[in-house]
Amino acid sequence: MDIFKATRTMFHLPDGVTYLDGNSLGPLPVSAPERVATLLHEQWGEMLITGWNKAGWMDQPTHVGDRVAKLIGAEPGHVVMGDTLSIKVYQALAAALDMQLNRKIILSDSGNFPSDLYMAEGLIRSLDRGLALKTVRPEEVADHLDDSVAVMMLTQVDYRTGRMHDMEALSAKAQSVGAITIWDLAHSAGAVPVDLAGCKADFAVGCSYKYLNSGPGGPAFIYVAPKHVDHVRPALSGWLGHEAPFAFDPDYRPGAGIERMRVGTPSVIQMAALEAALDIWDHVSMDQVRARAIELSELFIEEVETRCPDLTLVSPRDPSDRGSQVSFSHADGYAIVQALIAKGVIGDFRAPDILRFGITPLYINDSDIRHAADMLHQVMEGRLWNNPAYQTHARVT
Amino acid sequence: MDIFKATRTMFHLPDGVTYLDGNSLGPLPVSAPERVATLLHEQWGEMLITGWNKAGWMDQPTHVGDRVAKLIGAEPGHVVMGDTLSIKVYQALAAALDMQLNRKIILSDSGNFPSDLYMAEGLIRSLDRGLALKTVRPEEVADHLDDSVAVMMLTQVDYRTGRMHDMEALSAKAQSVGAITIWDLAHSAGAVPVDLAGCKADFAVGCSYKYLNSGPGGPAFIYVAPKHVDHVRPALSGWLGHEAPFAFDPDYRPGAGIERMRVGTPSVIQMAALEAALDIWDHVSMDQVRARAIELSELFIEEVETRCPDLTLVSPRDPSDRGSQVSFSHADGYAIVQALIAKGVIGDFRAPDILRFGITPLYINDSDIRHAADMLHQVMEGRLWNNPAYQTHARVT
Repeated sequence: MDIFKATRTMFHLPDGVTYLDGNSLGPLPVSAPERVATLLHEQWGEMLITGWNKAGWMDQPTHVGDRVAKLIGAEPGHVVMGDTLSIKVYQALAAALDMQLNRKIILSDSGNFPSDLYMAEGLIRSLDRGLALKTVRPEEVADHLDDSVAVMMLTQVDYRTGRMHDMEALSAKAQSVGAITIWDLAHSAGAVPVDLAGCKADFAVGCSYKYLNSGPGGPAFIYVAPKHVDHVRPALSGWLGHEAPFAFDPDYRPGAGIERMRVGTPSVIQMAALEAALDIWDHVSMDQVRARAIELSELFIEEVETRCPDLTLVSPRDPSDRGSQVSFSHADGYAIVQALIAKGVIGDFRAPDILRFGITPLYINDSDIRHAADMLHQVMEGRLWNNPAYQTHARVT
Repeated sequence: MDIFKATRTMFHLPDGVTYLDGNSLGPLPVSAPERVATLLHEQWGEMLITGWNKAGWMDQPTHVGDRVAKLIGAEPGHVVMGDTLSIKVYQALAAALDMQLNRKIILSDSGNFPSDLYMAEGLIRSLDRGLALKTVRPEEVADHLDDSVAVMMLTQVDYRTGRMHDMEALSAKAQSVGAITIWDLAHSAGAVPVDLAGCKADFAVGCSYKYLNSGPGGPAFIYVAPKHVDHVRPALSGWLGHEAPFAFDPDYRPGAGIERMRVGTPSVIQMAALEAALDIWDHVSMDQVRARAIELSELFIEEVETRCPDLTLVSPRDPSDRGSQVSFSHADGYAIVQALIAKGVIGDFRAPDILRFGITPLYINDSDIRHAADMLHQVMEGRLWNNPAYQTHARVT
């Protein structure tokens, strides 16, 4: 597929590195440094404070949000960029709970990011109105959806195993019992086709530094469905979500539509890198990426299962149940990943025993996959992970 | 003073522009683009995900926080960077209120940023336990400090007039009635000497894109006093504030000390620009900056009052009661500022009638001040603001 030859040239890939960790931090788009430099020199440097208007910094969060909206099946004008994913989870959950004053249960699952659960814990404690977080196994979520559930808060693609929820079916079930839905798309946006509008999702959140390649600390996003956006009352009632931020009114009045989910000053420099990264998506459709990701994932599973019998596939075998990653388990997973990184193949480890590999067709091809499987085979065959150097590093990836 | 000749060369100042708006957005440090480019190419580009450890991205928020701590008289290890100022206000206020479960009043003043008051409004509504925001006139704050006050939340330097609170006296009074203090240092950090430790402040917050020159969307900071930092319970209980972020525990446990005030992934690219900007402070002390700022401010007031009798000084006349800005009022203030900008002198306007000029000795000198006063005189003398073009722009500065 020629298009992926082209998109691969749009990324800087370090010599000697095969990068299967785009699910944690995407690589540098070739155009990003120039875009950021232009922002620094021509906008911040020359326009100074007037850049907020002249260079359009103030409108960037919604303009960029519209570009992300296209990748997640959201209606235009219903996604805004800003803050971090944790903050966006808090905003969505606070808004959703505010719509459900008579219900007490936040339903989530053990496949959700702990970070999302932490934000829920903090909010539950602050609200102090008898709310409870109920965390069930992923396959049991549907069974626990009943009219006690205020909010169903799920991450679509499990960050450890890659297991993917059926967003449409769970959203429909949630809706049928009157529960509000919040979907975390951290491992979905840019990884798999998402149809927020079609699923009638209520809220969605996500980050931009994984499959969207915006760089370390890139801004997060939040989606609010059209039927809610003019009614939600923001808990984080920031000045840039005010109806008239520059009137400096003493009282908060929420802005129109998705603008109200803005909080403070947007991270304009990060946003420039994100814009460069999003340009790449003008060349390729989400469906093309998905089809290619499945080909590459199937190849990787086949290669690894054939050559590394000690590794156990923990991702769903059916590609339609899987996001854009492949995970294996092994008791020495941490050290194996370190040994593999020493051979130039970067995947990552997730406790307690998961080796995780992101499959990102924009810059990964068949020979990368074969090479990664080769190196993994060498590590396993030679038991290279027994080197103590691979067993003691801090786990920051 | 030679040192300020040197620091002036450390900024990019556009040709034909006299910039008196560093209180809104500081100018580009000459070293920032190179620092950011190095981050992009050598760190993100080459290290990819391993940059979190190898390049120290994960520790940046506290390391950079220590550099900011020196400028605001904070104990080392008690400041952390991240998020936006609004989020930091929310964190500080939530933590403070959690320590004051038997009191109902949040005392602030009409000189505070509306944005801070908005965040308080949102939190009060969420907490729903009879809290009230009491906003008095700045000079009346001390009189309203009594044992009903849970939290005294003030911005030290008024963003409109430059009036500066006596942080030491108000902190002492607050402490004597058992109120917790939150100081917003947005117009203090890098502008005036601050002694958080000496004042026994409980919490402080601020931003980095004004007098610290980190660029549009630079990260904010939060300070928590040593006596509180190991006891506060974060409302925004994010994974990077967890005791062991990479253990992926299902339950939140706050990290040690100031680490617990971290929330999500830090904005690493913005942080690189901030680090370049902070290098400038290695060459000059806050006391030197303050002394020079007072000289320049006194000169500006004298020049403007002598030559523009229609402008009324609204900043305190005594420099010890004033931050590092000078404000005048005029009914046509908005159009006057626009006319002045058209002449290359950038100040800004704040509703309803305030012309605001930031005095920033790191890059502003006597001739800038004289030139700005000349141009203001020309605008006033020629009534240049009557040009309709100056009366209709959106107010985004």
